[in-house]
Amino acid sequence: MKYLKILLIFVPISIICKFIHLNQPTVMFLLSALAIIPLAGLMGEATEEISFYSGSKIGGFLNATFGNATELIISFFALKEGLFDVVKASIAGSVIGNILLVLGASMFFGGIKHKNQKFNRKVVEVSSSMLIFAVIGLSIPAIFTHTVKSELLNTKYEFLSVGVAIVMIVIYALSLFFSFHTHKDIYSSEPEEHGEPNWSLKKAIIVLVLATLAIAAESEILVESVEPMTHALGLSEFFVGIILIPIIGNAAEHSTAVLMAMKNKMDVAIEIAIGSSLQIILFVAPVLIFLSLIFKPMSIIFNEFELIAMIASVFIANRVASDGESNWLEGIQLLAVYLIIGMSFLIL
Amino acid sequence: MKYLKILLIFVPISIICKFIHLNQPTVMFLLSALAIIPLAGLMGEATEEISFYSGSKIGGFLNATFGNATELIISFFALKEGLFDVVKASIAGSVIGNILLVLGASMFFGGIKHKNQKFNRKVVEVSSSMLIFAVIGLSIPAIFTHTVKSELLNTKYEFLSVGVAIVMIVIYALSLFFSFHTHKDIYSSEPEEHGEPNWSLKKAIIVLVLATLAIAAESEILVESVEPMTHALGLSEFFVGIILIPIIGNAAEHSTAVLMAMKNKMDVAIEIAIGSSLQIILFVAPVLIFLSLIFKPMSIIFNEFELIAMIASVFIANRVASDGESNWLEGIQLLAVYLIIGMSFLIL
Amino acid sequence: MKYLKILLIFVPISIICKFIHLNQPTVMFLLSALAIIPLAGLMGEATEEISFYSGSKIGGFLNATFGNATELIISFFALKEGLFDVVKASIAGSVIGNILLVLGASMFFGGIKHKNQKFNRKVVEVSSSMLIFAVIGLSIPAIFTHTVKSELLNTKYEFLSVGVAIVMIVIYALSLFFSFHTHKDIYSSEPEEHGEPNWSLKKAIIVLVLATLAIAAESEILVESVEPMTHALGLSEFFVGIILIPIIGNAAEHSTAVLMAMKNKMDVAIEIAIGSSLQIILFVAPVLIFLSLIFKPMSIIFNEFELIAMIASVFIANRVASDGESNWLEGIQLLAVYLIIGMSFLIL
Repeated sequence: MKYLKILLIFVPISIICKFIHLNQPTVMFLLSALAIIPLAGLMGEATEEISFYSGSKIGGFLNATFGNATELIISFFALKEGLFDVVKASIAGSVIGNILLVLGASMFFGGIKHKNQKFNRKVVEVSSSMLIFAVIGLSIPAIFTHTVKSELLNTKYEFLSVGVAIVMIVIYALSLFFSFHTHKDIYSSEPEEHGEPNWSLKKAIIVLVLATLAIAAESEILVESVEPMTHALGLSEFFVGIILIPIIGNAAEHSTAVLMAMKNKMDVAIEIAIGSSLQIILFVAPVLIFLSLIFKPMSIIFNEFELIAMIASVFIANRVASDGESNWLEGIQLLAVYLIIGMSFLIL
Repeated sequence: MKYLKILLIFVPISIICKFIHLNQPTVMFLLSALAIIPLAGLMGEATEEISFYSGSKIGGFLNATFGNATELIISFFALKEGLFDVVKASIAGSVIGNILLVLGASMFFGGIKHKNQKFNRKVVEVSSSMLIFAVIGLSIPAIFTHTVKSELLNTKYEFLSVGVAIVMIVIYALSLFFSFHTHKDIYSSEPEEHGEPNWSLKKAIIVLVLATLAIAAESEILVESVEPMTHALGLSEFFVGIILIPIIGNAAEHSTAVLMAMKNKMDVAIEIAIGSSLQIILFVAPVLIFLSLIFKPMSIIFNEFELIAMIASVFIANRVASDGESNWLEGIQLLAVYLIIGMSFLIL
Repeated sequence: MKYLKILLIFVPISIICKFIHLNQPTVMFLLSALAIIPLAGLMGEATEEISFYSGSKIGGFLNATFGNATELIISFFALKEGLFDVVKASIAGSVIGNILLVLGASMFFGGIKHKNQKFNRKVVEVSSSMLIFAVIGLSIPAIFTHTVKSELLNTKYEFLSVGVAIVMIVIYALSLFFSFHTHKDIYSSEPEEHGEPNWSLKKAIIVLVLATLAIAAESEILVESVEPMTHALGLSEFFVGIILIPIIGNAAEHSTAVLMAMKNKMDVAIEIAIGSSLQIILFVAPVLIFLSLIFKPMSIIFNEFELIAMIASVFIANRVASDGESNWLEGIQLLAVYLIIGMSFLIL
């Protein structure tokens, strides 16, 4: 995590390049991406510091909500620019990346060091059955839409999208109520190491606010450069959305998960990967649907590739996680599926 | 259950309205629906009373066979009217409704009262792997048919439908043989409370016969009113088949399942929900295929929406049931999927 | 196994008929098929004998690699003739046949004799999660391709096919490394009965070489007769590929699995069925892709029926195997799905 902070140097660099109107979209994309990675880490750190002062309930809620703030901010600017395909691809890409890349890398690197790693099956089962629900819920309107050949009115899609978004966010709120209130005992099986806050509350809040503002500025630079960059490099916007943006938005979190797995805290690694996917579907996606109503309504209808890749990811992750143990070969399998999906996207 | 009996008043009301040729299809639909609900409950009660006299084997068989008699009778009249779409939609709707609505409501209301509810994993695993088989078996011909673009001869579909129906009903017979003969020990883990019959055998048989006749009469009224009602209200026949008819046909059974869950008898609630779905696929659907040969052969080919909804239901139910425990959040997830499916059907 | 050796008489008969240019494709197909069945058994026996001398590691590797040699040889000749549909159908058919027919028959016949058969859940879970990975990996490029409606360049498919093949074979090598090196302890839970070799090493090697050569000769005869036979009998090449060739290539192995199940060695039976499917996907399919580059590149894109049948097989097998126990009803379910798939292929 400490090494990532060196990348903070790209925050001023990218802003200077923006002000001198550097007309190099690929360079601007790269600079803002490199700036966002440590900012997202800083935001996570500040949230954790605040949770020392706020108590575990509000802290848990803050962590859960700010965990995907970076992606939400990037997507907000993409939404504003009308880049719906990029927004939806980055939602799908976050789910796929969290499950296949993060969980795969955690199981692989953890498994190399510890042979067989056990984790709390009960907690993982709650999250992973939730994940199945979330992906099925997200897929049903899309599958129905793709199989209906006739042209439907856009207003009907809008109604369906908003309806599904409301269901999703209600389930998200209920799941927080479940884990922080009615069934909190499942999660507290191992006593958490609480430790001491390193920052004062005032410092933590200032860092959180500054990091959020800086991420917003960098996200605008990043999103502006997407279209010209894809033209310049011959990449598809779809590829940028499904592979690059999720990696940028989640890099800090990803490295934490792998580090935890290497310390044999597989529970934490899995919770980061699956929990993050859940938040994307149940919180980030609905919020983006609602926000889109301000500009131009975005439908919740994903394309076939996104659906297939998400369903396949969730399915294989469930199988791999269901026995309460992991090893390096399971990690490799997840990474291999990510690789095959990536190769397939390349030939599109 | 007792409150439902008040609804028996709608039996004479609906028949009188029929004789005075009341030309209000929506009213007639409603009256006959309200009459069928308590009649189905009465039929179930009579079957149970008979099983006190007949011994547990024949009783189990009677319960298993008469459990979906109401749906079979309604579908028979729909078949006679040539409403194949309504028949198939109501088969799919029964499967979806039993799993998502009944199981979901049971887990939700039971979970609110009892926090974590345990059930016999072994019994549920037999039923739920059976359910996967049944849905896959039912889906394969349909998926094949939808992916073949060329026009096939109708006789080929007929052959396939009858063939699959024979396989299904043989498996159903074998599964009864499995649970009442070769592996009955799995099921008898907890001693059943046998109790005393409340009715004489003669009374039970008379009630069973009368209820069956009355259901037949009401089903004819119900089915006759479907087409004019859908025209009058602008509903699709598909919606009537997939949502309304299954709720009418299963209302009595549904309330039993939820009551059982609230008494912490989750095993019974799950058996009602999954067992009822199994009977629909393995017994009711094949019998309807055979009966259709009398009028005009109905194919076993479901449409894409029915397939997707059935596969998704079975998949999420399996995951939710696989850990041998349930809680209110799992119930909510099932109900939310039902809601999303319902919303998607609405925009079709 | 001994009874199968009587079929060796068909080796000289088929070769004589070939030399006298018997112009009866159906007879030639049948004769060569009947010759291949005992030859494949002989090859398996010779490999096992060699493994007595080579030590368990190399022996395991030999068994794993030669286990599907017969199918590889038949497919090689089909590839040379350009019968890509037959090759791909026989890959899919091997996977389906191993899981539904072999595992189903093992569970059925074993279950009739032993009521409930337990097996090592841990080993089966490694194989079956591997199998899910393999089928998903194999399906993703195909599903992507089928949903892309536009015409893509053939070179892109070639690139994707070779890429996926490389990923598959690397995973195969890593899985051998996993089971023979880093995690060999999972597999050695029960001490294997080692016994004594029956043959001298020299004899075993000579038999292996001769059997391989004879299989090659017979495979050429078999493949040559496929096209004229299908014309003569009105069968589709697809049916030959998906049903007949897998049964011929695996008959020896299949009978071993059922015999093992009847001896209550369900672990061995499942390992044969699932392990064989895994090898087909992770080893035979990639090798065929590489070999096809010599003649004319074959893509790894399976058609919809093959995909659906493979995914359904793997899904139901996972469910059936996940509880660590089997009974005759589970066997019947697998066989019934095979029957329904077969009936659906017939109407195509």
